[in-house]
Amino acid sequence: MTVRVDLNLSLDGVVAPADQTPENPMGADWGRLVEVYIGTRTMRERVLHETTGEGTAGVDDRYAAAYFDGVGAEIMGAGMFGFHAFPDDPDWRGWWGDEPPFRAPVMVLTHRERPPIEFSNGTRFEFLAATPEDALARAREYTEGDIRVGGGASVVRDFLAAGLVDRLHVAISPIVLGRGARLWDDLRELEREYAVTSEVAESGVVHVTFAR
Amino acid sequence: MTVRVDLNLSLDGVVAPADQTPENPMGADWGRLVEVYIGTRTMRERVLHETTGEGTAGVDDRYAAAYFDGVGAEIMGAGMFGFHAFPDDPDWRGWWGDEPPFRAPVMVLTHRERPPIEFSNGTRFEFLAATPEDALARAREYTEGDIRVGGGASVVRDFLAAGLVDRLHVAISPIVLGRGARLWDDLRELEREYAVTSEVAESGVVHVTFAR
Repeated sequence: MTVRVDLNLSLDGVVAPADQTPENPMGADWGRLVEVYIGTRTMRERVLHETTGEGTAGVDDRYAAAYFDGVGAEIMGAGMFGFHAFPDDPDWRGWWGDEPPFRAPVMVLTHRERPPIEFSNGTRFEFLAATPEDALARAREYTEGDIRVGGGASVVRDFLAAGLVDRLHVAISPIVLGRGARLWDDLRELEREYAVTSEVAESGVVHVTFAR
Repeated sequence: MTVRVDLNLSLDGVVAPADQTPENPMGADWGRLVEVYIGTRTMRERVLHETTGEGTAGVDDRYAAAYFDGVGAEIMGAGMFGFHAFPDDPDWRGWWGDEPPFRAPVMVLTHRERPPIEFSNGTRFEFLAATPEDALARAREYTEGDIRVGGGASVVRDFLAAGLVDRLHVAISPIVLGRGARLWDDLRELEREYAVTSEVAESGVVHVTFAR
């Protein structure tokens, strides 16, 4: 029952959450960050709902497949869900259309009071104001599997700083963004609690994993 | 006649120049950043003057050997030379003792007026106040070989921002420092002018190279 984080980063540590679609309005930087990852066979099927078997195989796709493997519940911030981009839309249901890729309960950390939103594929967004510890406790009520902390950067940093993350995987694209939310700020010596391994994909993306 | 940069970075992009010794007073962070690199066979011989053949071989040592290969002149900032740490010492001769590893002319960018310092191994420190372009022109008077811009971070960023660097190699240690001078700031889309390749060493250090 691992608590996991998987993120796409630039060389300068700018974060993009890994499970949104290229169609969403997050700007050109976001598209460039996730370009390789979203091009994998797994992500094209799972996120873009393509069924033609297109997309890349290899190292990136191995990580993309692992992204979904064994995750029984997810936690994300209000910004990742889209509340910051669409603050005035009472019917906002997230970026992901009618088939969000989570297929599991998702705790959205927000002070807004909203009823849960359920999708036929098993995704269920639940809205709560909670500390990292309490959000994890709530997620554990739903699953004996892994729990992912999806993003964004500040939410992930909170969970890392609290020592609650068992495995952190970052897919670093060899690009410099120079602006945006950075993951590593205030996480000095994070590596002390983990074994760190790295692997370069055929695409040039560097996958770095911190594991307990 | 390539203009080169080689630096050690943390995951969060904090810089250490690669050619100083563990004995120097740059603090524990610096020691951790260059630990692997300074442990290579090449660096132990060239920088620490060990002659016993100790040190690691493999990918890190291949980059360490390339660090010195073909470099005919060097440019560095006043901080890297040590003027910021020892501002009041008129006899300061750099961090490197009687056998600085450069064995070539070194242009030190400073407004201090000092006579050149020569060493028997071919190292010659020359002090000048110059723009990046003018410093390169001066270095080219000494060599038809490669010119390295050694550091620190702000000097390297100036040369990169001016489009003067042909090859940038960074050895990224899988540690988070969270403080110190960062390389990537203000270098948005640096990758556009380069082909970028990455390689993971046996040590876990990730070597990323930007080459024209």
